Amino acid sequence: MLSKSIEKYANSLKQKKHRLEYKRFIAEGEKAFKELISSDIFIEKIIALPEWIDAHDTELRKFRNVLIPINEREMKRISSLVKPSAVFLIAQIPEWIPDEKNIYSNLNLVIDNVQDPGNMGTIVRIADWFGIPNIFCSEDSADPYHPKVIQSTMGSIARIKIFETNLTELFHSFSSITVYGTMKDGDNIYKAKLKDHGFILIGNEARGISDSLLPFIHKRISIPRFGKAESLNAAVATAIVCSEFRRIA
Amino acid sequence: MLSKSIEKYANSLKQKKHRLEYKRFIAEGEKAFKELISSDIFIEKIIALPEWIDAHDTELRKFRNVLIPINEREMKRISSLVKPSAVFLIAQIPEWIPDEKNIYSNLNLVIDNVQDPGNMGTIVRIADWFGIPNIFCSEDSADPYHPKVIQSTMGSIARIKIFETNLTELFHSFSSITVYGTMKDGDNIYKAKLKDHGFILIGNEARGISDSLLPFIHKRISIPRFGKAESLNAAVATAIVCSEFRRIA
Repeated sequence: MLSKSIEKYANSLKQKKHRLEYKRFIAEGEKAFKELISSDIFIEKIIALPEWIDAHDTELRKFRNVLIPINEREMKRISSLVKPSAVFLIAQIPEWIPDEKNIYSNLNLVIDNVQDPGNMGTIVRIADWFGIPNIFCSEDSADPYHPKVIQSTMGSIARIKIFETNLTELFHSFSSITVYGTMKDGDNIYKAKLKDHGFILIGNEARGISDSLLPFIHKRISIPRFGKAESLNAAVATAIVCSEFRRIA
Repeated sequence: MLSKSIEKYANSLKQKKHRLEYKRFIAEGEKAFKELISSDIFIEKIIALPEWIDAHDTELRKFRNVLIPINEREMKRISSLVKPSAVFLIAQIPEWIPDEKNIYSNLNLVIDNVQDPGNMGTIVRIADWFGIPNIFCSEDSADPYHPKVIQSTMGSIARIKIFETNLTELFHSFSSITVYGTMKDGDNIYKAKLKDHGFILIGNEARGISDSLLPFIHKRISIPRFGKAESLNAAVATAIVCSEFRRIA
């Protein structure tokens, strides 16, 4: 049964201020469940339909004490999905510790003020596909633990280390790492010399990269246009850029 | 003023059956307005806020007789956006005539049962960026004239020719055109020999390409995975594939 207090708590986590207060986020669906239980992220509650619980006996063995069976009507009261799933998790927002060696030796995404939660989540999933372990995002970007972001990551949130940070300070701290800026007036990415490590900087959907960050860019890169669309979606552009960095390897 | 009959008509076009009945679709926002008025698509109504009309005097000169000024409260009653825009258009669904020469000499996207309207719209925008003039989509795909699709195309709907068709018949009719199937067990696309013409076949978000279409595929291609995500979003995969086809040119 869904108690009033759990219902209130679960719903409060749809708002950023409460996610920050409790250091918790919500994740829904089979895929998120599978990825989270096999990650290092602490799971506080698993709220699920009885049939689903019966069908997942083995996977749930370790989580008996945090399991709350509820019915479909109750699930609708906490779900943020149009079609609620059979399982709803409350998990701890991980406080990753930046691993300097890992940052220096890998590709890292740097997200400057991307606003759409769907784009943000898709970018996390892209990073996970292309083996990019760290994402740094500006504090004015979409919250990486927003339910829509979590949903769009399709479980990749459990693997990719996301750091919300001041990007100016980031670039100052890692001043020897090459910063690739994806922008309209950059060099043709198909012909650019790319490395298997560095910062890939992605700007806002409409305005691109902030003026204050332009001085940190070492190489400006852009995706050639063959047709007439004015721009590409931010996540789509990120995907093409990541793919180009990987194809050279 | 928004008459009851126009309000009812505009709202009815949110449903596919009425779009088919009237052969009309709705489009909202500045970008869609600009792209549609400079296209060959017939515009039946432009419904807009008075301030916006005043600010667009020149562009509206040709459209005086189809212009309906309404207030913000009325706009909310017809808009399908959370934040309604200042302009709302009703336009004719174009009945493009397939241009065989154009199909043979270009890249064409073939969409098999892509379900998400956001993905469908983003794919249209990707086609427009990469200069891919034709999209063929199966009749069970998301309706290309769904308001969410139109919104996601960011105006590209005015340029890309979209044909809803039976894909089996399409491949039979154009049997000499190479069909590239994007699928998990395909050859590494970074190493594949790609041409600047052909059909690029994209499958459903979860199930991939339908079994019935597999016999038509000449070359199976896939995007190498470097990390652990199980899959890429359908629009993201389309973008990377289109980019690979273009980089060879």
